[in-house]
Amino acid sequence: MTAYNQPYRGGFVGPAHHFALTVYFEDTDTAGVVYYANYLKFMERARSDMLRAVGVDQREVLVGGGGAYYVAECNIRYVRPARLGDDLVVVSTVDAVRAASVTIQQRVIRGDELLTDARVTAAWLDANGRPQRQPKEWVDKFNRIANAD
Amino acid sequence: MTAYNQPYRGGFVGPAHHFALTVYFEDTDTAGVVYYANYLKFMERARSDMLRAVGVDQREVLVGGGGAYYVAECNIRYVRPARLGDDLVVVSTVDAVRAASVTIQQRVIRGDELLTDARVTAAWLDANGRPQRQPKEWVDKFNRIANAD
Amino acid sequence: MTAYNQPYRGGFVGPAHHFALTVYFEDTDTAGVVYYANYLKFMERARSDMLRAVGVDQREVLVGGGGAYYVAECNIRYVRPARLGDDLVVVSTVDAVRAASVTIQQRVIRGDELLTDARVTAAWLDANGRPQRQPKEWVDKFNRIANAD
Amino acid sequence: MTAYNQPYRGGFVGPAHHFALTVYFEDTDTAGVVYYANYLKFMERARSDMLRAVGVDQREVLVGGGGAYYVAECNIRYVRPARLGDDLVVVSTVDAVRAASVTIQQRVIRGDELLTDARVTAAWLDANGRPQRQPKEWVDKFNRIANAD
Repeated sequence: MTAYNQPYRGGFVGPAHHFALTVYFEDTDTAGVVYYANYLKFMERARSDMLRAVGVDQREVLVGGGGAYYVAECNIRYVRPARLGDDLVVVSTVDAVRAASVTIQQRVIRGDELLTDARVTAAWLDANGRPQRQPKEWVDKFNRIANAD
Repeated sequence: MTAYNQPYRGGFVGPAHHFALTVYFEDTDTAGVVYYANYLKFMERARSDMLRAVGVDQREVLVGGGGAYYVAECNIRYVRPARLGDDLVVVSTVDAVRAASVTIQQRVIRGDELLTDARVTAAWLDANGRPQRQPKEWVDKFNRIANAD
Repeated sequence: MTAYNQPYRGGFVGPAHHFALTVYFEDTDTAGVVYYANYLKFMERARSDMLRAVGVDQREVLVGGGGAYYVAECNIRYVRPARLGDDLVVVSTVDAVRAASVTIQQRVIRGDELLTDARVTAAWLDANGRPQRQPKEWVDKFNRIANAD
Repeated sequence: MTAYNQPYRGGFVGPAHHFALTVYFEDTDTAGVVYYANYLKFMERARSDMLRAVGVDQREVLVGGGGAYYVAECNIRYVRPARLGDDLVVVSTVDAVRAASVTIQQRVIRGDELLTDARVTAAWLDANGRPQRQPKEWVDKFNRIANAD
């Protein structure tokens, strides 16, 4: 087994989750920059990685019919474009934890430069699409992250 | 030449641009719904079609080095999910026209149901990524659309 | 209700199914052409439209736990690139119908020019991923298409 | 600077380039598996990483107007499906090096299981889309990889 066979995992630096990635052809468009919808893919990868880091197995929950996180709202500002080959980091912090949803701030940076700045609210819905309380264990985890230093 | 060889074109119903599409496998994810980033693809198709309808050839402008519209801000609410095979319509209206940008409201509907509701600000940037005034001819066109009845 | 609210549907011209589409920003990459994986999206849209045209409701079958078509093999040649704003047609013909699979030839053309040429074999798998016989009614339909003039 | 800020890089294990990744929501579809076109994205990431590992900066060459690698042919067999959260490895080996093109075998594996098996031929085209000889330095590099043990 080689180290190359281990996929990337991000992690927490204090209260901020860091998730690094490189821009590939699939992410760009003919204007020479990362296509605007694809930043939402980067952010979802970061959120999934953050959930995994705190012990949530999204697939297990989905298959078990237990619901899933669905994005309810996303407000994103595009400040500077990213290009092919750029190394980016998605920095995510828990902004607010409510009974049935969580709001996360997600910034995409390249070195010291801010490229995009987003606020994403994810609601916990059951298998029928109805909002329901998040498992208390997770609320506790999110609160612990939000208050870490 | 068959009619099937004519790709879909949307158009204006008063001040609102309508753009219809069907949900394919590529648009969905393992939660059984349209993946949240893909609504931004639907919206961009609608904006490109709207530009074409008012006579703007984006490729010509890009190739001519004359700049392009870049999304500067996107605020989107996800109200109800879409699923495989759904027929959707993106309804776009010009919300505000400024010297160097335009704000468009874009709603994705399925029959009478609102699925997503977004406000997208696109800025006109030159080939070096600097904001510049939109061609006056286009500002006039956007204003005409915004005030149509 | 406006005509703009009707999404595009392709259809058969003799034995060949025609499916037209326009290239949007999402389809392109920073090399200025349609990204190679996205032709497979175009082809899947065409196959789904072809199935719908012969009366197969893929979503109903999926939800009913009845299985789905999965691509088992895809051989594709890229002859000429497509670019932003191009109007393309996917021309699909049934090449071979077997008990548990069907092979379809799919060409993407732009006017008289051949852009890509693919042969796609789709197998009918049950909910557990096991190959199973396609419903006889569909085999009959595919055979009828293959032999139309 | 944290280690989390370093994006993943693959590398060579003898003559085989290994590139690991995790399946995210964006990769899946409503049938519960990775959408068939998205394996081509995984493979392109692996090829780009392989080029970077041997010292080719694709963006620099593109911007310099010096051409790019375009896929001319792709033959892919889908053996087993991947699902959300799976850890995959793309194993790539140089199959044939010609004056103006290179053929690479790319297998996607999950542990010991083969999921997809592809052969991809990439041609080196100049800025006008005409085939041209690959830089000799790169041919040498590909040959060295192909013959490594």
